[in-house]
Amino acid sequence: MEVAYLGPIGSFSYRAVKLAFPDAKLTPVATLVDVIEAYEEGRVDLALVPIENSIEGPVNLTIDQLFHQSSAHVVAEIVLPIVQNLLVVDAKRAPEKIFSHPQALAQTREYLSEHFPQASSVPVASTALAAEIVQQHPTLAYAAVANLDAADFYGLVPLAKGIQDVAQNNTRFWVLGEKQPHIALPSTAQKVTLALTLPENLPGALHKAISTFAWRGIDMTKIESRPLKTVLGQYFFIIDLVSNDNIKYACKEMESLGITVRNLGKYCIYEGEK
Amino acid sequence: MEVAYLGPIGSFSYRAVKLAFPDAKLTPVATLVDVIEAYEEGRVDLALVPIENSIEGPVNLTIDQLFHQSSAHVVAEIVLPIVQNLLVVDAKRAPEKIFSHPQALAQTREYLSEHFPQASSVPVASTALAAEIVQQHPTLAYAAVANLDAADFYGLVPLAKGIQDVAQNNTRFWVLGEKQPHIALPSTAQKVTLALTLPENLPGALHKAISTFAWRGIDMTKIESRPLKTVLGQYFFIIDLVSNDNIKYACKEMESLGITVRNLGKYCIYEGEK
Repeated sequence: MEVAYLGPIGSFSYRAVKLAFPDAKLTPVATLVDVIEAYEEGRVDLALVPIENSIEGPVNLTIDQLFHQSSAHVVAEIVLPIVQNLLVVDAKRAPEKIFSHPQALAQTREYLSEHFPQASSVPVASTALAAEIVQQHPTLAYAAVANLDAADFYGLVPLAKGIQDVAQNNTRFWVLGEKQPHIALPSTAQKVTLALTLPENLPGALHKAISTFAWRGIDMTKIESRPLKTVLGQYFFIIDLVSNDNIKYACKEMESLGITVRNLGKYCIYEGEK
Repeated sequence: MEVAYLGPIGSFSYRAVKLAFPDAKLTPVATLVDVIEAYEEGRVDLALVPIENSIEGPVNLTIDQLFHQSSAHVVAEIVLPIVQNLLVVDAKRAPEKIFSHPQALAQTREYLSEHFPQASSVPVASTALAAEIVQQHPTLAYAAVANLDAADFYGLVPLAKGIQDVAQNNTRFWVLGEKQPHIALPSTAQKVTLALTLPENLPGALHKAISTFAWRGIDMTKIESRPLKTVLGQYFFIIDLVSNDNIKYACKEMESLGITVRNLGKYCIYEGEK
């Protein structure tokens, strides 16, 4: 089995895909769009894409690509806490320059300014690239903010672990595929994700759509509007529901109102690590 | 008047702040969190922050920061189309290496692979940094994908203009301040943004909240759920409404249901450029 993910090795996507599919062939791909295309074109069996992750790009890009350019189904969701670490070549030397992705530097700002007030922060394109820069300059007092896989891959040691300022900060990934894969992680709940496009001539259309869930006792856990790129000021809606047999009737009712419903998938949520 | 924005000079935030406040003192700040803090601590009169922009970081970071860490009010929204350009030192030389932010490279992928199939793409931390790299290596066949302000500031020339693959791709910015500022741009509409926190013990709470708008004929243009960082699986909701005198009654009704309502601002939307 081959799984495409947003590389390089050492990224948070790599950590998620490795935890979920420890025995699969893991193929790093350069951009989010390319990951989804690799799956669409049948070059891989599964694809893993970040859908809520402040480091590897906005959720919007994934959601827009899946909605506008793809017919792929979501077959699993992986939730991974963001854990940042300070990686160095030599743990006895205090870092003078700290490299990382701008968001990872932002996530560790308080820790770094308290413990290493003299060190300057240098933003680079990814956390994995930061680790590579540190590896390539072993004689300099460089450090990288990245995850522990990057330490393994680039031969660095953690000077400090778990240095993110906000403890509870998860990243979420979707697995695209044909059927539910075996995932080597504990599963917590089952969800359904729908994409709704509302008709222009239906006043209060979103209220009507949500009513079809409310009176059936279907729990909505997330809702997001995204602009339809065809018409300025028009939106489609991504809605997460707790899996429930009544969802199919809600979908029929919405369709009878003229609402376009696309089922992006019914899938389990897996916890990456505590 | 002094306005803080997410730097460096040549970023998309810079373009927005310069169009909106051509006569103000514009102060670049390194991170989103620092931009908001500069305003909160009274060091500037206004702050401009991206709230929907795939290049300068996710909207989530701004919204979370405003909701969790700030009491600032939104006094204006600036909408700016994303226009990418290929900038070089010497327009007679074909680029061999093209530098930019990963999202900007993704946005121009089709154009670059069609017109410069031999050139390699190099992701860096920002579009402005890409322009700086090109400026600093005038003898090499380097190019940057960035906006035209970066060309002005770094002394580059556009080899091609408007090279983004998707024509209609806007970025949105909020201006934080005490009262509505004078903005040198045409205004299109007036909006109200509310942040709702729903009580746990109110079944179908989001449906009830939306009902208070629907039966009053208040148009909802955007809705987004964001995790409350205090309790896993709980959300707050950011809702944009077309400005309407009845919104205050809807807020009173929601509060009587136990819903916590915070008014983030009532403000005009300004169009940056066509």
